[in-house]
Amino acid sequence: MSFEPASEAAIHELTLPNGLRVAFAPMPWLPTLSVTLSLPLGSATDPDGLEGSANVLHEWLQRGAGDLGSREYSDALLDLGVRRGGGSGRERSNLSFAFLASVAEPALGLLADSVVRPRFEDAEFEPSRELALQELESLKDAPTQLLFEELQERLFESPQRRSGYGTEAGLRALSPEGVRRDAAARLGPSGAVLGLAGGGKWDELQAIVAEAFGGWSGGNVPLPAAALAPVGRHHVDAESTQVQIGLGFPSPAPGTDDAYTYQVALEVLSGSMGARLFTEVREKRGLVYSVSAFYRSLRGFGYTLGYAGTTVERAAETLEVFLAELGRMAEGVSAAELERARTGLLSSVVMSGEATGSTAGRLANDIALFGRPRTLAEISGRIEGVTLQAVNDYLAANPIPEPTVVTLGPKP
Amino acid sequence: MSFEPASEAAIHELTLPNGLRVAFAPMPWLPTLSVTLSLPLGSATDPDGLEGSANVLHEWLQRGAGDLGSREYSDALLDLGVRRGGGSGRERSNLSFAFLASVAEPALGLLADSVVRPRFEDAEFEPSRELALQELESLKDAPTQLLFEELQERLFESPQRRSGYGTEAGLRALSPEGVRRDAAARLGPSGAVLGLAGGGKWDELQAIVAEAFGGWSGGNVPLPAAALAPVGRHHVDAESTQVQIGLGFPSPAPGTDDAYTYQVALEVLSGSMGARLFTEVREKRGLVYSVSAFYRSLRGFGYTLGYAGTTVERAAETLEVFLAELGRMAEGVSAAELERARTGLLSSVVMSGEATGSTAGRLANDIALFGRPRTLAEISGRIEGVTLQAVNDYLAANPIPEPTVVTLGPKP
Repeated sequence: MSFEPASEAAIHELTLPNGLRVAFAPMPWLPTLSVTLSLPLGSATDPDGLEGSANVLHEWLQRGAGDLGSREYSDALLDLGVRRGGGSGRERSNLSFAFLASVAEPALGLLADSVVRPRFEDAEFEPSRELALQELESLKDAPTQLLFEELQERLFESPQRRSGYGTEAGLRALSPEGVRRDAAARLGPSGAVLGLAGGGKWDELQAIVAEAFGGWSGGNVPLPAAALAPVGRHHVDAESTQVQIGLGFPSPAPGTDDAYTYQVALEVLSGSMGARLFTEVREKRGLVYSVSAFYRSLRGFGYTLGYAGTTVERAAETLEVFLAELGRMAEGVSAAELERARTGLLSSVVMSGEATGSTAGRLANDIALFGRPRTLAEISGRIEGVTLQAVNDYLAANPIPEPTVVTLGPKP
Repeated sequence: MSFEPASEAAIHELTLPNGLRVAFAPMPWLPTLSVTLSLPLGSATDPDGLEGSANVLHEWLQRGAGDLGSREYSDALLDLGVRRGGGSGRERSNLSFAFLASVAEPALGLLADSVVRPRFEDAEFEPSRELALQELESLKDAPTQLLFEELQERLFESPQRRSGYGTEAGLRALSPEGVRRDAAARLGPSGAVLGLAGGGKWDELQAIVAEAFGGWSGGNVPLPAAALAPVGRHHVDAESTQVQIGLGFPSPAPGTDDAYTYQVALEVLSGSMGARLFTEVREKRGLVYSVSAFYRSLRGFGYTLGYAGTTVERAAETLEVFLAELGRMAEGVSAAELERARTGLLSSVVMSGEATGSTAGRLANDIALFGRPRTLAEISGRIEGVTLQAVNDYLAANPIPEPTVVTLGPKP
């Protein structure tokens, strides 16, 4: 089997004088262009006591920009057929646009306006905060999401422990002036990344981006390094029917050699319906409906989260089997498991290259997390290069550490 | 703006002698191929008293096929790098595979085996049922999903009211022999559709499909026509923090002229962050975190579901504003709204054409719902052809009917 991605084209790069980094993956067979603007603006750098400021700022800055009020700005995007997405997280916030490459100039102009010339109108502040409060409130009815917030709060000691949603107290303490001050301090081009993927010519896009984002200035708050809290086991009482089990532990940093080796090992553990976790926990024992382990990355820091949802009666056995499978990884994987894991990962990599949105997001993430964008061919090549020896040497030398465990559900 | 999809290539079609319908959309610039096998197997045709039989059958038939036991079958797919998906619904069940076009022959062979030569081993029955029971149980912690099940149960009078998950009593009443009998009755090629999209040559794929699926035989249970229950308002008590509001009403059947006109009107109501519902309910009044209305289709039958999640205090006003916006549609839309809605829909259509998975699914759905697959160019052309006059004439003649409303949350 040969895993040739759809395009082997090089990635174009550019750094504007103000520090904004730009990367473009040409997909000339497509009429569409996707763009992700990744901002160094997350809950980890929220001012103390104002947890949720980045989340509200991310909503507020989309409500009008340049000469356009909130409604006019939104209509201008609709006139161009722009599809918007994005969100706010622990270290960064994203704004994503997808549109026809033929409207790249006005669409990128509007995207740039939201950070270069935000309006931050008083009238739009309260609805922005209100949405954040309601989003936080709705977490209470989403036990799986709530579990991951509770888990990461206990997994990290550094400010990355803070939920991207913010806290009720933090959100209520925000004011328009305070968030405007926060924007001046954090909403700058240094540390921001613009990823583009799809149709369009690089020389034209380069000129458009330089024109649209060239006038952007503003501060930058240094991101603290991620650091873990002491390992522990915790229970959170909740009025749910099932028990949600979450666990977390450190893993290789994104973009490192070890990260590729570990990714192949993790695929053996939880990459597919035939992977160990699924087979041992779900298929053999019928213990849970849903079980998985997945890699997450912060800047220069990788970790793995595990999840299982099950009944109160089965919770203890489920956790026990899950931990046993984590421990068993130190014994290594078989040649057949390795081959399947590599094939599965390579398939996923090739398939992720079909879509402009995931490609633009990957470029922006790569630069934000470890400083340079990767082509699909590089990622495929690195995964293909992971040998059985390398995986088993790695796993023997780096057994999965004892995880922090959080259960959420009825009082045990 | 010109909305040219990435490819204008014709769709290839084929009907096997056993009745299986096949459609292929070539995307020759991609190395991957996605396939959706849509089976005429859903909760609406579950035997009475055995609600959930289709759901369990859908799981069971993926656990081993032909000469391969469950584990061997799963490993064979992993060896090929096949990514699996799918699910079971009210009228149909899907099996989806995505893989490199170079392994089309063995991958399609394995897909075919699951319906042509299913194993239905006794040992795999209980875990299949157990998963369905746990999936049903986990609904209790997912109030939004639960709302839609409760709503559709009250919206329909015909068997389409039945949840795709099945019922606890129905699932417990299943036996291996009973589900095998059900498979003999329902798991046949007549009424099944195979949609393919991506790289690969039609003459080769044709031969592979004919060889793999040619020997498939089996029965077919006629699908009852969808019919609505009398309109009503209902409350379901649940231990949630928020109130979930759902509403449903009939809409034009999929693939009809009216469906295109209605789709443009619905885009004005709820197509984007600038649409009426979002603006009136969320932005102006800050009433809810999430509000939307979306089109759903069954065979020969279309309907619209609406959703809002809010606090107990705001529930009544939220519903009132939602209903007022539905009523206001009869007054028509403005030229600017129409233009934006058309542009937004056309953008979405072009973007959905990027991915092989969504294209294969669209082909299979089109044939299952109204008998023929559409090219992207046809869909774009029909949307572009919707005039202001047509939308406003339609809305004046067909005001949104009074919806069935279900609220789920604390006792009011």
